[in-house]
Amino acid sequence: MLDHLKKYRIVLASNSPRRRELLKGLGLDFEVRTLEGIDESYPSSLKGEEIPMYICGQKAKAYLPTMADDELIITADTIVYCDGEVLGKPFDDADAARMLRQLSGKAHQVITGVSIITKQIHRVFATTSLVEFDNLSEDDIEYYVSHFHPTDKAGAYGIQEWIGYIGVVRLEGSFYNVMGLPVQRLYKELATIE
Amino acid sequence: MLDHLKKYRIVLASNSPRRRELLKGLGLDFEVRTLEGIDESYPSSLKGEEIPMYICGQKAKAYLPTMADDELIITADTIVYCDGEVLGKPFDDADAARMLRQLSGKAHQVITGVSIITKQIHRVFATTSLVEFDNLSEDDIEYYVSHFHPTDKAGAYGIQEWIGYIGVVRLEGSFYNVMGLPVQRLYKELATIE
Repeated sequence: MLDHLKKYRIVLASNSPRRRELLKGLGLDFEVRTLEGIDESYPSSLKGEEIPMYICGQKAKAYLPTMADDELIITADTIVYCDGEVLGKPFDDADAARMLRQLSGKAHQVITGVSIITKQIHRVFATTSLVEFDNLSEDDIEYYVSHFHPTDKAGAYGIQEWIGYIGVVRLEGSFYNVMGLPVQRLYKELATIE
Repeated sequence: MLDHLKKYRIVLASNSPRRRELLKGLGLDFEVRTLEGIDESYPSSLKGEEIPMYICGQKAKAYLPTMADDELIITADTIVYCDGEVLGKPFDDADAARMLRQLSGKAHQVITGVSIITKQIHRVFATTSLVEFDNLSEDDIEYYVSHFHPTDKAGAYGIQEWIGYIGVVRLEGSFYNVMGLPVQRLYKELATIE
């Protein structure tokens, strides 16, 4: 499928093992390329979907100089947006526990921005999912943080980990977007790339 | 977690590797026991959630004679409910393609019934999720069926497989329920078992 993309070498520009697994699920051949030290700050005037779209655009810019003529590079950025506030990656376990207390007993948004670039094309889009957590007890939070150390995850949780199993009462939208890549939307976008 | 269940030997009565994986994700110790030839027919008067609740009740009955005093047995049954019709497991690839054509471009329900039995307790509940498929092309369907042969899956698809990646535009409710076991609800029920 997506045979028209065979003229490109597809590059996933992401450190995330979850994104690699998800892109693999689309049945595409691709390689992974990562750069260190990309600035992930953003103007404070941005809101909601604008934020990960801006950041993944910045990531795309950082990869541009590395890009060969026949390459198609995919960058992505996921944020957790709760009470109008962005929850990034926690600094440590205590910070992770604080974030989980904030997410407990309510719904939040998970927004992933994705950019697709070639020498000719620069596309960017965002996908939003809603995730509702049950009331999480201090025991739940302590157990999860001490066993999973979610400091590599925006919002301090992985929906595919224990806390996602026992804690998520409702999802609305794309599950894979919550994991870090809105594969269905990405597939549709790739289908329209010349 | 769920330390009060340590007095039970937990048995998952299911052939499904997906259910085993999902129950594992709850962090419980359990064994798997399967019986052949359980009758999965149901009275035609039943509708929606009544159907998998009835079937998993029948499964529970079949396991009762095998049950030791200290065992807690979990049975489950998942159906796909589309246009008021139950889609079971397809007979062959052609039947799978027919089901996918029926699911294409609209929303359907996935309903899992679960029963929890011990010598003292018999509980049964059902969880419903909504899944909406994008329009699936004949190429999509042909590719999926010929590569994945989904004849072991109700409704002829696995949301965790390629067709779920490229085809599902929206989910509402529990993702894991669509995979075959509503782990969050199950965890809550187990938490209240004496």
